[in-house]
Amino acid sequence: MSTTETAPVDNGVNVEALLGARAALTEMPPAAAFTWKARCEWVRGTHSRTSIDGFFGLGEEQSHRQTFTIDTDHPEVFAADDNGATPVETALAALTGCLVGGVASVATHRGIQLRSVTATIEGDMDLQGILGIDPEVRNGFNGIRVSFDIDADATPEEKQALVAQSQKRSAVFDLITNPTAVVVSA
Amino acid sequence: MSTTETAPVDNGVNVEALLGARAALTEMPPAAAFTWKARCEWVRGTHSRTSIDGFFGLGEEQSHRQTFTIDTDHPEVFAADDNGATPVETALAALTGCLVGGVASVATHRGIQLRSVTATIEGDMDLQGILGIDPEVRNGFNGIRVSFDIDADATPEEKQALVAQSQKRSAVFDLITNPTAVVVSA
Repeated sequence: MSTTETAPVDNGVNVEALLGARAALTEMPPAAAFTWKARCEWVRGTHSRTSIDGFFGLGEEQSHRQTFTIDTDHPEVFAADDNGATPVETALAALTGCLVGGVASVATHRGIQLRSVTATIEGDMDLQGILGIDPEVRNGFNGIRVSFDIDADATPEEKQALVAQSQKRSAVFDLITNPTAVVVSA
Repeated sequence: MSTTETAPVDNGVNVEALLGARAALTEMPPAAAFTWKARCEWVRGTHSRTSIDGFFGLGEEQSHRQTFTIDTDHPEVFAADDNGATPVETALAALTGCLVGGVASVATHRGIQLRSVTATIEGDMDLQGILGIDPEVRNGFNGIRVSFDIDADATPEEKQALVAQSQKRSAVFDLITNPTAVVVSA
């Protein structure tokens, strides 16, 4: 065997640590109860800023290395200032981020070296919903399409299997394709 | 009547333009067919970067004023580098951004001056789902809670009505509470 064939893949994912975490949480299910959090402040008009700095998990409060902020706004065609992606585009970014991160994790677990991964996403929406023009039209997307382009040491079938497994374990894919209860209080 | 009572509210939302857009789209429904888009590039490990620069709407391709990018990653407790909010936190930001922007729009339409709006959000998740420990546990959130704190010239009932109307017209609220078809191709 050549050196190339035996070189371990390095996609930047620590699979051993993840498998260890899975083993630990299998032994202690309460530690797997996570609560993700964010706080959103209105800026002006439809512009707002959501800050993300910590979450609860492994039985205690956890901190991110830094506070992450995500600005959202409406575009100029809605007579707004376009100071951020729209909330629906942000939701699309959540899905692509989840699926692409998943592909990297699964590829590493399967010993597949990645060179590049790109996911393009489109979501169709009939604005007659959110504008209240037609009550039969839903507010959200009518459908979403994600297309992957993967450059890796893998066959087309292996690449398809990476994406399929990422989709199977994706929290955001589940969030979008299945209903979740949301309680809003004022 | 005092000057204060007759002063128009200024929340930074151009309600007249929005009402004009609704009237125009009521006359020309095909212009209301939008397609929102994003493109995600894998960076390393579970870190990826999604870019948002344009969308299709009003019958033609539209550009944002600038390209917006959203980085997502996993936190250090998952043996990752924490170079961005997690995808699920990003989904929570999409929801708060949508609901808060909606509150500003509805408040302006109703002549309510806002001073501040804050929305805090929490989503519970059992990681036994995404880790594949228990097939009966879903990957996504078990439930999401959003709590508003609004400082405005309005009664508590009026504030609750603002939030209720924002929720009723929210694209991301619909996206999370109802199922959407997602087609992923590799």
